[in-house]
This record gives sequence, structure tokens and C-alpha cells, in this order.
Amino acid sequence: MPGYTHLEGLTSADIARLRATYAPLAESVRHLIDATIRSEVDADEVAAVKADIDRATARLQAKQIDGPFGVRFTSDGDRLPWGNPAIGLRNPIAPPLVMVKDPDGAIHTDFHLGAAYEGPPGHVHGGIVAMVLDHVLGEVAASDPDSPRFTGTLTIRYLRATPLGALHAEGRITRTDGIKAFASGRVSDADGVTAEADGVFILPKWARR
Amino acid sequence: MPGYTHLEGLTSADIARLRATYAPLAESVRHLIDATIRSEVDADEVAAVKADIDRATARLQAKQIDGPFGVRFTSDGDRLPWGNPAIGLRNPIAPPLVMVKDPDGAIHTDFHLGAAYEGPPGHVHGGIVAMVLDHVLGEVAASDPDSPRFTGTLTIRYLRATPLGALHAEGRITRTDGIKAFASGRVSDADGVTAEADGVFILPKWARR
Repeated sequence: MPGYTHLEGLTSADIARLRATYAPLAESVRHLIDATIRSEVDADEVAAVKADIDRATARLQAKQIDGPFGVRFTSDGDRLPWGNPAIGLRNPIAPPLVMVKDPDGAIHTDFHLGAAYEGPPGHVHGGIVAMVLDHVLGEVAASDPDSPRFTGTLTIRYLRATPLGALHAEGRITRTDGIKAFASGRVSDADGVTAEADGVFILPKWARR
Repeated sequence: MPGYTHLEGLTSADIARLRATYAPLAESVRHLIDATIRSEVDADEVAAVKADIDRATARLQAKQIDGPFGVRFTSDGDRLPWGNPAIGLRNPIAPPLVMVKDPDGAIHTDFHLGAAYEGPPGHVHGGIVAMVLDHVLGEVAASDPDSPRFTGTLTIRYLRATPLGALHAEGRITRTDGIKAFASGRVSDADGVTAEADGVFILPKWARR
């Protein structure tokens, strides 16, 4: 499968070093995204800041991966989905979601969404809610790294608007049937569930044995 | 409805000036996001760039909106959803999608997704496909600005992985029934449809007359 790069020879210490280098950069860019949306400084100041950002971008581009990040594996088999827009620690678009596996096989994540994820005023864009649920359900359905499953069908029921701020999402497999896994999940705030989802996830042909 | 701010007194020229100020900044931050994911420069250089970005963020934060952007309206009734993560011209997370209304009431958008939207290697994250479909369907269902409808249920069928690159999405209302609108849509690449969606959109209580 193209794009699944094995980083042979990278030790756990190398991975830790790369994480310590790039995670703080992405976090800084997340703050910049928020400020870009909310700033009220004048046009001259915005133009000056834009020029600084363009210079910063050029410095980062001096040496870069050819193409998107892909999913990289270490020689120990660790997965590094660092470019992922839901969980990628190098992707400033990602909140990033941190997935926690529960003893019973379910997965949950506690996260915070700010101005960058706003649809209806003060509330999370319905499409971002969909992205969170797609990712949580996909992750629980693909919990066996040798059997990556991709989303077949995803149905989301929006019970009420999801407020910006502290949120929780969780998912679990409800049933498997050959190449299919059925998963369900939900997003909630402190007052309860705001959206529910059911998904059917399918093992791709290239991964079937 | 809190968060729907009317910017009384802002003329079309003021809006054009604000757009010319902030849209290029967001576009620069989009390039920075891409470079943040793909850069391979060394740790010292990343740390130096991070410090520059933190300074840029602080300059933008010197004067900023208290809270998220919301949806702002001009005195002419023009909607400014500039902070929106799908279409917001001030939101670096947004591609941004540019929605085009067709004569028959359908809506379409042609857009490009790069490294920041990658899930499976070389392909768009399923949750980003969901976000695009949620937004396109929601926009077509809410095409009357006095009757904003919010997503009730959204079902997405992923036919095949959506490659990164040039993409097209479209949506149309298939039926309305009182406070509900039924919409369907799809995402496609040059080779055809990659994902389809059906949605039920509901007029919120506060907007019912």
C-alpha cells in the first residue's frame, strides 16, 4: 500500500526526539489559527505579521517531505499518524484528539474545541462533530493494526447543538461479521449526549487474507 | 440568538477592506499548516521558527474579539461566516470551500485538499469528507437566510477512498416537509463519485414562525 512508510532504524528515542521537536510547533500554529480568526489589529499590522509568517513557512519548507505525511511505522511497529487531521500531533488542524483504549475494548477521548471549529455561533460545526465521530468509530473498528478497516457507512444523529469547549467522545464495536465491523459512538458535553453515530467499517481488499 | 452579531454601519466597502486584510493572512497560515506537517528541518531551526510564530500570534492577539467569531451580518443583511471551518475565509482550517448556487437551486463547490486533510495515505480523512458533505447539504437546506436549518441526521456512504487533490462536491434539496428539509449530495474526483450523503435538516425552534 503506497504511503505506508516504514522508518527502519528509528529507535523509540528517535521517535521521542521527533515528537519533542514537532509537537510544540504544531501547538504554536494552533494558537496562531485561533488568533487569525479572532484578531482585530489593523491592516498594516496584519500585513507585517503575514510577512513574518511567510518567512517562517519558507524556513520550514527548506527541507520537507515530498507529498503528504502518510502513515509512518517505526521498526518496532509503532504507528505515527502525525499528519492526521483528527489525531495528528504534527497537524495544526487536529485538536488533536488523544484516544484512550478502555479495558473492555471501547475507546474514548476528552478534548476541547475552540473558535477554529465553530459553525453555529458558540457551537461546534456539525461537520466537525461528524469528523470526531468518524474518527472515533474508525479507530475502534480498526483496533487491530493488521486489519485496518475503512468507513463504509456512517450515520449521525444530531440531538442538539454541541457547544464549543470541553467535550467527550466514545465509541465501541457492537458486532463484527467477516470483513465488516459495526460500531456506535457519541459526543457529549457536561450536560449529556449531543450527537450519536452508527458506522459500518470494512476491511479493504488489500488487507484481506 | 446569541452570537449572531449585526455589524451596523459597516458598508460594502468596509467589508471588502476587512476581506482584503484578513483573507491573505489566513491563506498564509494555510501554507504554514502544510509546512508544519511536512517539514524535515532540524530541531534548532524548528525551535527558532516556533519562537517567530509565537511572536506573530502575540501581535495578532494584541486586539481581538472576545470569544469565537460567530456569524456576523452587515446592515445590508450580508452574512459573514468568516470563522467557519468549512467556508470561513478567516479560518486557516477551512480549505475554504466556495459555494456556488446553481440556477436550479442546487449548490456545488470545486476545491483542493492537501496534506492537512489526509487520513489513509494519499487520501482524504473520512471525517473531512463528512464535514464537506455536512456543510454542502446544510448550506443547500438553509438557502433561505431567514430559515436557518440545522442538521438532524446525516448518512454518508463511502464508495471508495477519496484521493487528495482536486475535488468536487454538490448538494440539492430533494424534498421539504414543514420544519424539515431532505437533502442529498456527493463528493467526486475526476474519476467519479467517491462518497454520497443524505441528510435531514430541521428549522430550530427559535427560528420558527
